Amino acid sequence: MPDQPSTAPRISRLRALLRRSNVEAFLFLDLKNIRYLTGFTGSDGALLVGAGKPLLLVDGRYTTQAGREAPGARVVLYRDKASGIADALSAQGVERVGFEPAAATVEMLTGLRRKAKKVRWTPLQEKLGAIRAVKDPGEIRLIGRAARIAAGALRSTLERIRPGVCERDIAIELEYAMRSMGAEAPSFDTIIASGPNSALPHARPGSRKIRPGDFVVVDYGAVWRGYHSDETCTFAVGGAGRRHKKVYAVVKEAHDRALETLRPGVACRDVDAAARGVIEKAGYGSRFSHGTGHGVGLDVHEAPRLSTLSDAVLEQGMVITIEPGIYLPGFGGVRIEDMVLVEKDGARVLTEFSKELQVIG
Amino acid sequence: MPDQPSTAPRISRLRALLRRSNVEAFLFLDLKNIRYLTGFTGSDGALLVGAGKPLLLVDGRYTTQAGREAPGARVVLYRDKASGIADALSAQGVERVGFEPAAATVEMLTGLRRKAKKVRWTPLQEKLGAIRAVKDPGEIRLIGRAARIAAGALRSTLERIRPGVCERDIAIELEYAMRSMGAEAPSFDTIIASGPNSALPHARPGSRKIRPGDFVVVDYGAVWRGYHSDETCTFAVGGAGRRHKKVYAVVKEAHDRALETLRPGVACRDVDAAARGVIEKAGYGSRFSHGTGHGVGLDVHEAPRLSTLSDAVLEQGMVITIEPGIYLPGFGGVRIEDMVLVEKDGARVLTEFSKELQVIG
Repeated sequence: MPDQPSTAPRISRLRALLRRSNVEAFLFLDLKNIRYLTGFTGSDGALLVGAGKPLLLVDGRYTTQAGREAPGARVVLYRDKASGIADALSAQGVERVGFEPAAATVEMLTGLRRKAKKVRWTPLQEKLGAIRAVKDPGEIRLIGRAARIAAGALRSTLERIRPGVCERDIAIELEYAMRSMGAEAPSFDTIIASGPNSALPHARPGSRKIRPGDFVVVDYGAVWRGYHSDETCTFAVGGAGRRHKKVYAVVKEAHDRALETLRPGVACRDVDAAARGVIEKAGYGSRFSHGTGHGVGLDVHEAPRLSTLSDAVLEQGMVITIEPGIYLPGFGGVRIEDMVLVEKDGARVLTEFSKELQVIG
Repeated sequence: MPDQPSTAPRISRLRALLRRSNVEAFLFLDLKNIRYLTGFTGSDGALLVGAGKPLLLVDGRYTTQAGREAPGARVVLYRDKASGIADALSAQGVERVGFEPAAATVEMLTGLRRKAKKVRWTPLQEKLGAIRAVKDPGEIRLIGRAARIAAGALRSTLERIRPGVCERDIAIELEYAMRSMGAEAPSFDTIIASGPNSALPHARPGSRKIRPGDFVVVDYGAVWRGYHSDETCTFAVGGAGRRHKKVYAVVKEAHDRALETLRPGVACRDVDAAARGVIEKAGYGSRFSHGTGHGVGLDVHEAPRLSTLSDAVLEQGMVITIEPGIYLPGFGGVRIEDMVLVEKDGARVLTEFSKELQVIG
């Protein structure tokens, strides 16, 4: 796997964090973090990073695969996960351990406390939840490839978005096209929301048939080697009236103003404010009911968040979405979403579709 | 939604459990349990079942949908989930609360402990994890429909399982066929494992092309209105040699013996023993590396488990899989899986494909 990024620099950065966190080791239970730090892609396991070689703990299904995928770790087989972790901690003589409280279930921590009585557990969600926010060049290539697969699939499916075709059938065809073009999976359940349904930010594609005069929101993405893409296009079917053009123009302006703010050192909250300000000024403030964006990588939603409440600051190498929207019950909605890379002096859009208003069907 | 089962009897059974559990209320965080008890299908929320009408707590995306889907519950909006739950507990004056420790994260319970200081939390995983094990007639209809959709899709895809076609392309076609025939989704990532890959119980479909002499394991299922199906067929491509026939016959015998044991009151461990005994006697004991089956419903894997360690006992209305297998590294593997309903005097197979050895391609 020549273009699979090396995990060694990631472990090195983590050790620096370890020294600053007043713990002797980190226990990872989040499988995406484990994949990031080792390369292991199995569906269950745990990772212990302390002073020595990282320990990757897996069950009997995964010993062979773990050895092949995670050359930087020592693979340890467990029969019972909590017991296996407790034994590893005891063997290493580790007593202060940081963990991810959003990934650990109460059942798991209870089991660990019972089996590793000497260990003191320190929740470190904020630190460990953000270790993947800045992407390295290998990751950026994989995300870009995912975005290209997705765009190719949408191009080949576009002629299906026309009056008389139901939302669900478009979603099925688009997902099939992504898979056929190499995607491991869709990034999430594809949203095809038409007419009044487009006013629901989280609509599920249903039996409604596209009609002339509809907005159709297409929110979709592909997974390539574990990395996600995320993009939203809103099309006007059969023509765009004055109200369609007005609403679209406001969202496009919000999207463009947010893009212009992007560079290292900018507060994520200020990016959100740039988009939100445009929409508020146009009188639609209450119709933009979600944040402006989020990080994308091994998860389709990951750090940082771009919202009014975010404390995060942009760094070079972050991959984020910019996705303002306006949702008008009964009429319809517009969301315009690009996925972008924060670069030294600005940002580069990784998604491929034009975000000018397109009339189709 | 006329054939959507009523949730009222489920809440009644739960209240009986509440009285026996020395708590005043149950907090549900498992979304499948919440769906089961209320009908709500959203992607986030919490359910509090105490003395009065159940409280369904959701965020702003889901208030409309929750009101429509969950007429038996009172819908409460939260901005922060832990705060919303704490406020509801306080408003009801509830201080002893049972919860699902395998569904609650440490982060969530920490937040709840900080915000609802008077509440004592009782982990009740075993009791709450099994509330869905016995299916009602409405659920059995939905599971049966899922199995029929899946079988129709496999029948229409069967001609693709032939020499020269790669595993991944067969998986994509089969999943597309399930979606096109009405499935909401595949039950899980479809397994198409050919030749030596069939010796891996959890193989992922890859670029290997089918060859004459291969076993091809097809482990697949469809989701219909939230309910899953699960079935495995093993085909012989282009002919079956003596070893193929021998191994297949042993697994088939194990499968049939296990089926014969099924009736209410039988220990799940004994069902496993019936299958395992046949395989051990034939000398392949170490090559059957997983349990004999599991419950199926809103999750594709749920209570009860059928393994050497299981403490569960079969009850009328349980829907379970019977799926023995033999895996021979380098040669290939056979798994034969049916999904069955435990009935008053025995069991009825819900999956549709013949489990006799079929030579195809």
